[in-house]
Amino acid sequence: MDFAVIAAPIVGIVALLFALYKANSIEKVSPGNERMKEIASYIEEGAMAFLKREYNALSIFVIALFIILALAINWKTAVSFLLGAIFSVLAGYFGMKVATKANVRTANSAMEEGMNKALNVAFSGGAVMGMSVVGLGILGVGVLYILFSDPSIITGFGLGASSIALFARVGGGIYTKAADVGADLVGKVEAGIPEDDPRNPAVIADNVGDNVGDVAGMGADLFESYVGAIISAITLGLVAYGDGGVKFALALSAVGIIASIIGVYFVRGDKDPQKALNNGTLVSSLITVVIAFILSKNILDSYQPFVAILAGLAVGLIIARITEYYTSADYNPVKRIASESETGSSTNIIGGLSVGMMSTGGPIIVIAIGILIAFYVSGGLNDVATGLYGIALAAVGMLSTAGMTIAVDAYGPIADNAGGIAEMCDLPEEVREITDKLDSVGNTTAAVGKGFAIGSAALTALALFASYTQAVELSGIDLTEPAVIAGMFIGGMLPFLFSAMTMEAVGKAAFSMIEEVRRQFKEIPGIMEGKATPEYSTCVDISTKAALKEMVIPGVMAVVVPVLVGLLLGAEALGGLLAGALVTGVLMAIFMANAGGAWDNAKKYIEEGNHGGKGSEAHKAAVVGDTVGDPFKDTSGPSLNILIKLMTIVSLVFAQLFLNYGGILFNLFK
Amino acid sequence: MDFAVIAAPIVGIVALLFALYKANSIEKVSPGNERMKEIASYIEEGAMAFLKREYNALSIFVIALFIILALAINWKTAVSFLLGAIFSVLAGYFGMKVATKANVRTANSAMEEGMNKALNVAFSGGAVMGMSVVGLGILGVGVLYILFSDPSIITGFGLGASSIALFARVGGGIYTKAADVGADLVGKVEAGIPEDDPRNPAVIADNVGDNVGDVAGMGADLFESYVGAIISAITLGLVAYGDGGVKFALALSAVGIIASIIGVYFVRGDKDPQKALNNGTLVSSLITVVIAFILSKNILDSYQPFVAILAGLAVGLIIARITEYYTSADYNPVKRIASESETGSSTNIIGGLSVGMMSTGGPIIVIAIGILIAFYVSGGLNDVATGLYGIALAAVGMLSTAGMTIAVDAYGPIADNAGGIAEMCDLPEEVREITDKLDSVGNTTAAVGKGFAIGSAALTALALFASYTQAVELSGIDLTEPAVIAGMFIGGMLPFLFSAMTMEAVGKAAFSMIEEVRRQFKEIPGIMEGKATPEYSTCVDISTKAALKEMVIPGVMAVVVPVLVGLLLGAEALGGLLAGALVTGVLMAIFMANAGGAWDNAKKYIEEGNHGGKGSEAHKAAVVGDTVGDPFKDTSGPSLNILIKLMTIVSLVFAQLFLNYGGILFNLFK
Repeated sequence: MDFAVIAAPIVGIVALLFALYKANSIEKVSPGNERMKEIASYIEEGAMAFLKREYNALSIFVIALFIILALAINWKTAVSFLLGAIFSVLAGYFGMKVATKANVRTANSAMEEGMNKALNVAFSGGAVMGMSVVGLGILGVGVLYILFSDPSIITGFGLGASSIALFARVGGGIYTKAADVGADLVGKVEAGIPEDDPRNPAVIADNVGDNVGDVAGMGADLFESYVGAIISAITLGLVAYGDGGVKFALALSAVGIIASIIGVYFVRGDKDPQKALNNGTLVSSLITVVIAFILSKNILDSYQPFVAILAGLAVGLIIARITEYYTSADYNPVKRIASESETGSSTNIIGGLSVGMMSTGGPIIVIAIGILIAFYVSGGLNDVATGLYGIALAAVGMLSTAGMTIAVDAYGPIADNAGGIAEMCDLPEEVREITDKLDSVGNTTAAVGKGFAIGSAALTALALFASYTQAVELSGIDLTEPAVIAGMFIGGMLPFLFSAMTMEAVGKAAFSMIEEVRRQFKEIPGIMEGKATPEYSTCVDISTKAALKEMVIPGVMAVVVPVLVGLLLGAEALGGLLAGALVTGVLMAIFMANAGGAWDNAKKYIEEGNHGGKGSEAHKAAVVGDTVGDPFKDTSGPSLNILIKLMTIVSLVFAQLFLNYGGILFNLFK
Repeated sequence: MDFAVIAAPIVGIVALLFALYKANSIEKVSPGNERMKEIASYIEEGAMAFLKREYNALSIFVIALFIILALAINWKTAVSFLLGAIFSVLAGYFGMKVATKANVRTANSAMEEGMNKALNVAFSGGAVMGMSVVGLGILGVGVLYILFSDPSIITGFGLGASSIALFARVGGGIYTKAADVGADLVGKVEAGIPEDDPRNPAVIADNVGDNVGDVAGMGADLFESYVGAIISAITLGLVAYGDGGVKFALALSAVGIIASIIGVYFVRGDKDPQKALNNGTLVSSLITVVIAFILSKNILDSYQPFVAILAGLAVGLIIARITEYYTSADYNPVKRIASESETGSSTNIIGGLSVGMMSTGGPIIVIAIGILIAFYVSGGLNDVATGLYGIALAAVGMLSTAGMTIAVDAYGPIADNAGGIAEMCDLPEEVREITDKLDSVGNTTAAVGKGFAIGSAALTALALFASYTQAVELSGIDLTEPAVIAGMFIGGMLPFLFSAMTMEAVGKAAFSMIEEVRRQFKEIPGIMEGKATPEYSTCVDISTKAALKEMVIPGVMAVVVPVLVGLLLGAEALGGLLAGALVTGVLMAIFMANAGGAWDNAKKYIEEGNHGGKGSEAHKAAVVGDTVGDPFKDTSGPSLNILIKLMTIVSLVFAQLFLNYGGILFNLFK
């Protein structure tokens, strides 16, 4: 066994140890006074209770699929799947566990020691999450490769990661947005009390939501992306370059982890947290790029793979810039939405929807160019295999420093939560200012993270799609075949259906939440004067139940539909389905994420005093847009990234089945 | 030359004579008192002025493309194109000319003679439109086939029809919705005056908009669908069955026209206009189906083509049912949106968006099954050509009675306009009641029309796509080729970009309209008391200018992008682009049309007294949804049906170019 292959899981263990060390350092920070500890414990308990119930519900699904895989494919794939599911759960669990510790400690550090220390605690929380995700990811893939040396079996690991990710994203997304919308619409708009006010019955559910949606959900999501990219690179690398292709993919990922650990030490809180975060990201990216350049020549004896990696990085960075243009209040699109808010909610909504749709143009062209460069510069014109490997490497390159990008991403919700705790515990004004500052920096960096998430999802799904066509032994998928077109229509429709289901779920859950908050305001005497405590737990319960109930159908659909189409219409039509889902999935994900982001920032822009500021008619209209944008950007949109990959992995895992029994329907015509 | 081929243009002339006869019969009806004539003349003048300016603007585009075609392809195609463009303009012009006569006469008939006569006048107006469209369509295609006997040249006719249709739909759609939104938001919501109140400065522009958008725009749109379907059937029929394939397609269309003329006489206004319209539609469909059965055996010696036609009809009917389910207040989705309006605009918007997205599921599955049946039952498994011909026939079958369906469709806006005139001229209450009844029946039948429009667009585009792959001599379009995937991403993105542009155009134009109406309410003394006449013409002017300006970029984009991609990335990648655009175009069209319809009817449902009725908070929220839905269902959505076909026809016409010079970019890598 080669050194690079064995090094991979070892680096994974190193990352996990580093995460443990960081977690301990957070634990040592004081969580503040009794009131803070109490509020924090409400949040932690609510979050843990949700995770526990969610995982219980998922265990049924996991066991069922485990048995199916063991019977229909083989026991090795089934074991891989189980490991993937467990590791995904662990990644989400670790991240959330530490986030619910870090939030209150960030608030306390902001109060006692200022911005520098607060950034340090919040970012450490994010780093634990980041390192857990990449550590578990490379550990799992590495160990399975050492054990089985067969990419098709490791695909099971990806299936486990993807399916848990989908449920976690959808469930977490429904939870957090139902609570958020409920808390905002009744608390802020109707009752006129500020955000995170302890008199609001939904306030604890809202803060729990930040943890289960933005932290645990995101953790599972990125675990899935990371693992998916590596698996597709291993699969295609083996075909293109033999063992070298596998080695390079694993080595690149290991280097990225080490670079991320180094990068963490460059995030030092001087006066400017944005700069500190940028420094860390820059350092880890630079290290990775330089070593990738050397490894590319050394392991594969060619600079072509390196160019593909660069292309991937460029795609991620450019999409991030475009995302920023369409969603930041510094540019025209958001300003226009803000000004359109003056003529009411309808023009605000039309504005946001059209900005979202318009924003698909740039990223799609960049992705298309990225695909072409990664493929053709990697020699795809002469050897299809190396070209496809190039596409997979572009995704791996983009995600190699995921440890760092996740840390930067996950620190945002921690800071946000810290602000909530500061508000609820009546901490001094400066504390909230510090956490707000940290939070707003987090929003900007989150745009970068989103760019990488969408870009890598498109490339990874495409690489998995290529692996699929090889697995079902198709020489091509012919778009002029009516069955392929039919498959493509169905596939293209799934993201619409899926978004409809998740949005509706949020709508329904938010509706119950609104009714409950209104009820408490009316029925509990003294609640508005702060004399009586609201019944936080009923709100937590509403979100929990809605999330668990509503995540089932979309999640199961993602697994069942590809199998059904593959069996009925055959492997080629299933290829059409995957391609259709890939295209509309990426489009809808960009549309929804950016529309949501633009509405959010248009509202904030108005709140800064533009177009009449808070309380104006324009502001009311902007709040409507922001509320519509909530499920767009935090529930439906991000779930689509997972959906397209999950469906492809499902098809890949069950490839043998379609080869043997696919196309039942056509046998009727024969 | 065969009888069936010569019969086609003759039947076309018969249809046009019938239209002329009907137009004369309308002219004989009294237009009412002086006030009515005055208002009607405002509307007519505004509409004609817009059409004139629009056609002037388009003439530049037409001449430019004519020259390009003559130079790059051949003069015959260029002439075909010119003829297609002119005929399309004529179809729109005839339809609108008669609609602006019929509206006031419908109002007067309702006043003087009651429902029966009013239905008769309005429906006659629709019939003129319907017969003009199908008459000009089959005349053009028939004559060109007799002259050139070459489908590839006749494709030029389709290009002319499609490009004018796109501009007319987009321009008309922007015009009508800018006026509508402006009139509603300020007049109804802010000033609290009823719809069509003559004190509203935008009221004339609004009524003009119904004519240029819902009549002229729709006329050009359906002309394009009709012609596109026949052309694709001719092209594929020639390959599959030789001359017989052409004969059958033309004969089927001719039969449909005769059947529609007969059907017109079955629309007799007893007490129930819905039943009258249904009778007419039923009679013409039955005649067509029976004769299609006979012709299928006689001309092609097989019942397979007949089955494909039946499949097409079934697809149209089922989609119409599904559309009704998602957009009528009789069913749950609209009722749910109405109840979600109680918690405000944001839940109403989320509800409408998710209903729209959800509603894509059924139609897409039906289309997919329809494609499979039309292809495989027509013998596609043994002979691809006959299978593809089956798909084209499904579309032709669906549209064969277009003369009737358009009549039923176009009568709605005429009745709507009649209601507007009744309101503005202070006619007795009963008049408005009659026109409202006619209008509401029109809304239901419009759902059926939409089902056929979407279903036939999908099938026609697919048939044209098949013709394209034959024209560029591709043995297949391989989805595993990165260039094809890149093309597919770009193609899939175009409907998003296109919708964004058209929605933004409506938003911008509506914004100016709102400002202008507010200005007039403020600055013209006595306007609200009805003592001063508003400046109608400035509002007409705002809509006109906005429509003409904003239609240019999306229209030109639809023509330029396919050519560009074909030249740069080659014919196969362009195939990917077309497929991507087809899938997302159909999806977005369904999503937008149904979301818009659902919002509209949710508002009406509330206005009927549910959830607090007019003026309640729920009603305000529902008005927001309806306003967002306006550009969805009347501008962006319907344009997408044309967009996907136009891009395919452009590719088909320029096929030779891509064969010779396509794929410039790849030569760089060679």
